[in-house]
Amino acid sequence: MAAAPGADGRFGDPLMRRYLQTRERSVELCRSLAPEDYVVQSMPDVSPAKWHLAHITWFFETFVLQPHASDYRVFDERYAYLFNSYYYTAGQMHARPRRGLLSRPTVAEVLNYRQHVDDAVVSLLAAGNVSDALAGLITLGLNHERQHQELMLTDIKHVLSCNPLQPAMREDLATPPRLNPVALRFESVTGGTVNVGHEDAAAFCFDNETPRHTALLHDHAIANRLVTNAEYLEFMRDGGYQNCELWLSDGWATVNAQGWRAPLYWRDASGQALSGDDAPVLADAEAHEFTLGGLRALDLAAPVSHVSFYEADAFARWAGARLPTEFEWEHTAASHPVSGNFAEADYWQPVASDEQQWFGDVWEWTSSAYSPYPGFKPLAGSLGEYNGKFMCNQMTVRGGSCASAVDHIRASYRSFFYPNARWQFLGLRLAKDA
Amino acid sequence: MAAAPGADGRFGDPLMRRYLQTRERSVELCRSLAPEDYVVQSMPDVSPAKWHLAHITWFFETFVLQPHASDYRVFDERYAYLFNSYYYTAGQMHARPRRGLLSRPTVAEVLNYRQHVDDAVVSLLAAGNVSDALAGLITLGLNHERQHQELMLTDIKHVLSCNPLQPAMREDLATPPRLNPVALRFESVTGGTVNVGHEDAAAFCFDNETPRHTALLHDHAIANRLVTNAEYLEFMRDGGYQNCELWLSDGWATVNAQGWRAPLYWRDASGQALSGDDAPVLADAEAHEFTLGGLRALDLAAPVSHVSFYEADAFARWAGARLPTEFEWEHTAASHPVSGNFAEADYWQPVASDEQQWFGDVWEWTSSAYSPYPGFKPLAGSLGEYNGKFMCNQMTVRGGSCASAVDHIRASYRSFFYPNARWQFLGLRLAKDA
Amino acid sequence: MAAAPGADGRFGDPLMRRYLQTRERSVELCRSLAPEDYVVQSMPDVSPAKWHLAHITWFFETFVLQPHASDYRVFDERYAYLFNSYYYTAGQMHARPRRGLLSRPTVAEVLNYRQHVDDAVVSLLAAGNVSDALAGLITLGLNHERQHQELMLTDIKHVLSCNPLQPAMREDLATPPRLNPVALRFESVTGGTVNVGHEDAAAFCFDNETPRHTALLHDHAIANRLVTNAEYLEFMRDGGYQNCELWLSDGWATVNAQGWRAPLYWRDASGQALSGDDAPVLADAEAHEFTLGGLRALDLAAPVSHVSFYEADAFARWAGARLPTEFEWEHTAASHPVSGNFAEADYWQPVASDEQQWFGDVWEWTSSAYSPYPGFKPLAGSLGEYNGKFMCNQMTVRGGSCASAVDHIRASYRSFFYPNARWQFLGLRLAKDA
Amino acid sequence: MAAAPGADGRFGDPLMRRYLQTRERSVELCRSLAPEDYVVQSMPDVSPAKWHLAHITWFFETFVLQPHASDYRVFDERYAYLFNSYYYTAGQMHARPRRGLLSRPTVAEVLNYRQHVDDAVVSLLAAGNVSDALAGLITLGLNHERQHQELMLTDIKHVLSCNPLQPAMREDLATPPRLNPVALRFESVTGGTVNVGHEDAAAFCFDNETPRHTALLHDHAIANRLVTNAEYLEFMRDGGYQNCELWLSDGWATVNAQGWRAPLYWRDASGQALSGDDAPVLADAEAHEFTLGGLRALDLAAPVSHVSFYEADAFARWAGARLPTEFEWEHTAASHPVSGNFAEADYWQPVASDEQQWFGDVWEWTSSAYSPYPGFKPLAGSLGEYNGKFMCNQMTVRGGSCASAVDHIRASYRSFFYPNARWQFLGLRLAKDA
Repeated sequence: MAAAPGADGRFGDPLMRRYLQTRERSVELCRSLAPEDYVVQSMPDVSPAKWHLAHITWFFETFVLQPHASDYRVFDERYAYLFNSYYYTAGQMHARPRRGLLSRPTVAEVLNYRQHVDDAVVSLLAAGNVSDALAGLITLGLNHERQHQELMLTDIKHVLSCNPLQPAMREDLATPPRLNPVALRFESVTGGTVNVGHEDAAAFCFDNETPRHTALLHDHAIANRLVTNAEYLEFMRDGGYQNCELWLSDGWATVNAQGWRAPLYWRDASGQALSGDDAPVLADAEAHEFTLGGLRALDLAAPVSHVSFYEADAFARWAGARLPTEFEWEHTAASHPVSGNFAEADYWQPVASDEQQWFGDVWEWTSSAYSPYPGFKPLAGSLGEYNGKFMCNQMTVRGGSCASAVDHIRASYRSFFYPNARWQFLGLRLAKDA
Repeated sequence: MAAAPGADGRFGDPLMRRYLQTRERSVELCRSLAPEDYVVQSMPDVSPAKWHLAHITWFFETFVLQPHASDYRVFDERYAYLFNSYYYTAGQMHARPRRGLLSRPTVAEVLNYRQHVDDAVVSLLAAGNVSDALAGLITLGLNHERQHQELMLTDIKHVLSCNPLQPAMREDLATPPRLNPVALRFESVTGGTVNVGHEDAAAFCFDNETPRHTALLHDHAIANRLVTNAEYLEFMRDGGYQNCELWLSDGWATVNAQGWRAPLYWRDASGQALSGDDAPVLADAEAHEFTLGGLRALDLAAPVSHVSFYEADAFARWAGARLPTEFEWEHTAASHPVSGNFAEADYWQPVASDEQQWFGDVWEWTSSAYSPYPGFKPLAGSLGEYNGKFMCNQMTVRGGSCASAVDHIRASYRSFFYPNARWQFLGLRLAKDA
Repeated sequence: MAAAPGADGRFGDPLMRRYLQTRERSVELCRSLAPEDYVVQSMPDVSPAKWHLAHITWFFETFVLQPHASDYRVFDERYAYLFNSYYYTAGQMHARPRRGLLSRPTVAEVLNYRQHVDDAVVSLLAAGNVSDALAGLITLGLNHERQHQELMLTDIKHVLSCNPLQPAMREDLATPPRLNPVALRFESVTGGTVNVGHEDAAAFCFDNETPRHTALLHDHAIANRLVTNAEYLEFMRDGGYQNCELWLSDGWATVNAQGWRAPLYWRDASGQALSGDDAPVLADAEAHEFTLGGLRALDLAAPVSHVSFYEADAFARWAGARLPTEFEWEHTAASHPVSGNFAEADYWQPVASDEQQWFGDVWEWTSSAYSPYPGFKPLAGSLGEYNGKFMCNQMTVRGGSCASAVDHIRASYRSFFYPNARWQFLGLRLAKDA
Repeated sequence: MAAAPGADGRFGDPLMRRYLQTRERSVELCRSLAPEDYVVQSMPDVSPAKWHLAHITWFFETFVLQPHASDYRVFDERYAYLFNSYYYTAGQMHARPRRGLLSRPTVAEVLNYRQHVDDAVVSLLAAGNVSDALAGLITLGLNHERQHQELMLTDIKHVLSCNPLQPAMREDLATPPRLNPVALRFESVTGGTVNVGHEDAAAFCFDNETPRHTALLHDHAIANRLVTNAEYLEFMRDGGYQNCELWLSDGWATVNAQGWRAPLYWRDASGQALSGDDAPVLADAEAHEFTLGGLRALDLAAPVSHVSFYEADAFARWAGARLPTEFEWEHTAASHPVSGNFAEADYWQPVASDEQQWFGDVWEWTSSAYSPYPGFKPLAGSLGEYNGKFMCNQMTVRGGSCASAVDHIRASYRSFFYPNARWQFLGLRLAKDA
């Protein structure tokens, strides 16, 4: 992409600055990829990097430029069909599992598309008179782009993991620290009515974090850190994947149908995946994992990652504990600062820490099904499809991950995945009844 | 089945009386079936009637007789494999979708099996010295049998519905009343902390209803009756099944993949199912439904039934309302007596009523995912698999149906189904934010 | 079924006698079944016994009575939909894989249907003036019924084999002889032009056996007997199922996808099926098989049966031989009398023999794809769907089996199955290039 | 790719010249592709262009260099796993349907691999002393590469056809001639014994063309040209796709399951595919097709292409004719010169002609199942997997296509496809019984 206007800082407007920085970041994240890497879709949940770059651009074209920039010329009429994700009310769309069939537009053409849209948004902002509604839409678009930045990393990780050559996305990632986790401690919390949901009316949030409302907590205790790889390995060695008593019924069916015997990206010393009845019991020294930096020895002190809700739930039961509810999590997390291992740290992998790790590293599975808050009102129009329509069959996760942008996460932030999802950076923290 | 001991009332013991009555009821329910009808499994969710009759017998053999009747002789060692449903900790089992492959044991052999087990249980009870634990197990077995009695009706309904001949299970069912439903009214409820869960320590309940605990209700209003067929037909005519804005994402995918255009058993005047883009818009006079009494004209005043959670949720959104949470439902329902259209009324079909219909007729979908209560402890051993392991991916339903036994249902009773389930008597009641 | 008119032999007419005997035989074959056994469909290829009994009756109703008996009253208009198999030009039909969903009509009702049709056919014949065309249709119907009699046995065998109880269809089958097979010898045949296809214009044949025509044989040699279980066991012990070099590409894919490691009904001493990588190598004494008489020790001297074309072809390659073409087979078989182990022998299982076994015991796979003879003309109308439309993707088999009627088989008879089919009595004879 | 040694003609050796020309042609064919186009696999039958380029290189590395060039250094040990296609005896391989998951090696890396192997083969040839066996292997490798050159065109056509943008592979293809086909005439051939199979012992052929042998033809007549688009459109307008009487049973099932209503790449005027019950009946002017040059109006005079065996067979039946056997085809074709519309003509699409078109344009479906010739012996070792193991379930096609190289085709050449295949240039010529 040619240097975007404002990259030299000559635009003082904070919204424009944020727009340009966020947009450049998306392209920057993919710099180490070859054109071929942008094309592949390794499973329906995954989108090609090229598709992400185009889709987040289409979002601005459709929801910002077309309604608000009267002289805007659509880059290519046919892109709306290709790059709409799931906004049925915005028109027909290319079927999700077929995104990997598109060799065209090429990466270069997608970057041209980005430039075209960026020029128009910059013109729109430069013209001044930016209404609150327009600023809100752009802010929503940028937060949407932040989400896709995280997905680009997790999706390309999955793509590369399917290649027997096990290529690294980047050879120059930061070296993880060698630290020991803090001693596990359960912090007691007395039950009662608390406030949850987004608080700061001036700051951005997604509709699913609202309205702020009261929730009733029961007496409980919550762990002061995440579950580690060492602890998870213990669960595996204790026959965790073979003991049906530990599993939810759907989880047990999934474990057996999929041959799960370890977190998604764990490998043996030769790089082989661990699956099915033949999967070996790993000694510490044999345990490896596939990362965005390629195959590495497993750091036993780092938080376990790429486990499904079913595995998190089974681990908790094995440990004589349970997962926290999303409000138990939010209540305690809100008293901690939003800091930790985010994408900017350039590890792109959960790392060992002597902190409590409430934010960053891994999204934390909660025991709460993803549902609307009392009095929830989705956004009007197509943007109402953003969050509300997924409020069934998924579980809430909290806290962001090592692939999230630090400025994107807050205590009230809710993300959500199907209980069998593993390709995101997903881990867990234990809780207990009082 | 030969007359069971005690059928003549000579046993005064209430537990024995309940045992004999419940066991006889299971056989009695199937009296109108031909031997061939007992064999068919029309989808994996459905079990053959023969299988139900044997499974509920195996439950007593395994959990009551084997541990508690020292001289008990197992009827056939191989039945444990065939008739275990999902108790992994009790041993291996025949795969659920293959239950319809078993022509043997025949119905007559299954009835012999029942007699053998009944004789042994009666002997055990007649011997006296029935411990609380044993009485508890038998009571659990009888409640378990009550659940399967309901499933026998819903399963055989599905089996017969797959037959182009559309045979009735019974020609002699009671004639439904011709009544007008009460005017729809939303009753306001002020929010606050309430107690929910099973209350009467002396009475039976399932583990998933415990512990009784506090829950926080927000201000809301709840409908004084169920949604009717007439109202649902209006939703259909208004393009409800074609309007993606009304649907949860997973629901919309299901509607399109399955071609849903009406509740499961609705038919046109010629008995044809309504499915896919060619499904006609029905005039009132054309609307029919398949019932356990065969094909009938649809009673517009009766509660709508055989709708999935997705359809219930979409209907509610179309109506400008929502589904109640399970605690909103329980809080108001608890103030109503447990009476209504249960299986004993012999309609075996939801019927029009001028009452509020909190109990019976149809199970009511709530907006609550089925999850454990704070402090929930499953039963010990294999019986711990009864309820807890299903606490993921399913929605709570409340109130019982026209296929439930009246003595089986209470305000705290929780049943649960996947959101795409339709073969049970499943309907809905609306609620609103205050 | 009530005694059919003529059962006492008072009708001298040979066609009527053959009609009544054939029709009675169908019912007689099933006498040992319970009503429940008539219902099950264990895979799409299998039809319930009840369906067979009704379908072969529908054939007479549709192709004989409706066009030729002016006063014939259709038994039930709805049966045409249920019991049409694949005659698209005769109307719509119930989907084949859903035949097992039909508990109704019951067995008793199907027998009433048979009686109704038999009465009408008998009246028609008794009225005299039977045209050649009508006699031809009835003869076709009887040959069609003969084919379904064989399918009833093979289908019920598959149904019972899926039941962990492994019930026998009949306990009173004839005891197989203990004989040693003749020494294997390859008989040389000099190539040249030969005549093949049906010869005797006065006798019945199917359209696919015509026209009689010249075929060119190349020099070859053909075995004087069938491959035995002992020989097949040797192939297994030599790693036949593990050696990709022996297999056709589609065969190798099937072996691995299905986990085939032995003929379909082979079992270990405990009755367990042999499948997948865990399948044991069987010692002679351990080898068992499921038969219509229940689980039995494998007779090593008997012909191997229930192998697919892929297995037959792989065995032949392993043995340094090949399968004969259908014309190589027919040329030599035609010089042998049509005698052997047919259904009337009441073994219902291939047995050891000191004869050449060209007919009966097992259908013999040939290397010939099933295709039309030069100048082939299918029958007119719906009956043209009988054979011709299957002339793709299937392989020709020859010689009849232990489940065929002796009067049904001849040297020119062609049956055909997909190369992965195993549920018929299917075996092989070797051949070699000269 | 850097200029290959010999590109300047300085090597006089014919084998080396052919090696270099053939190898360069593979890369040249793809010149118009973007790197992204080389990656996509649109269905399991299709391989990415990148995979083809690497696989045909692996063939030389494995079967030529490793056994015959003692100092050869393997380019990357891991490529054997990635680029083996189906030679089980040569080791394990990457699963075919997962070829599209590989973004690495990149196109540039694959071209480096090609250069590495080409350098080594050139050195080997330049060293002289090339044994007949080695020359034979190289010749086999070049014929193998010719086959993949054709697959590269048909595969990339399928990939691009899946893209709603409908991109052309090349904008500069030759303009098809506007010609009228010759009048359809059936040439009579008197039956008798003829010789078929490869004749010229000095020239290359595949093992499946041998041994030359006698075959018996019956009296027949064969068309003097291919079936045209205009004729196929007539079949469509006459309800060909809706009339079950015209179809083989498996064909009819496929037509309905896949919604086939036209040849694979036919489109309406707006570029929409024609599928399912909603497919319009096309007027001449509306009929279009997707080609390697993008969307074009259908040339009614050109041969119909991209039809399956099922469609070819149904068309022939509709036309009152049949397909020729492969020997009927070969017998007459052998009297015509091997000339016509091959890939070198640069149409890359069948075109109208006033010739008989026995070679080029489209592969012609025959009625012959692909089977071994009498006395067929596959090549020894892994190369024996080349042809023989596919001799089941496929139909023979003859004559080459507009994507074949002219020097690759001869009258005895046999290719083969499953009867449902449509993505190759597949058409038909009619024949009749005399």
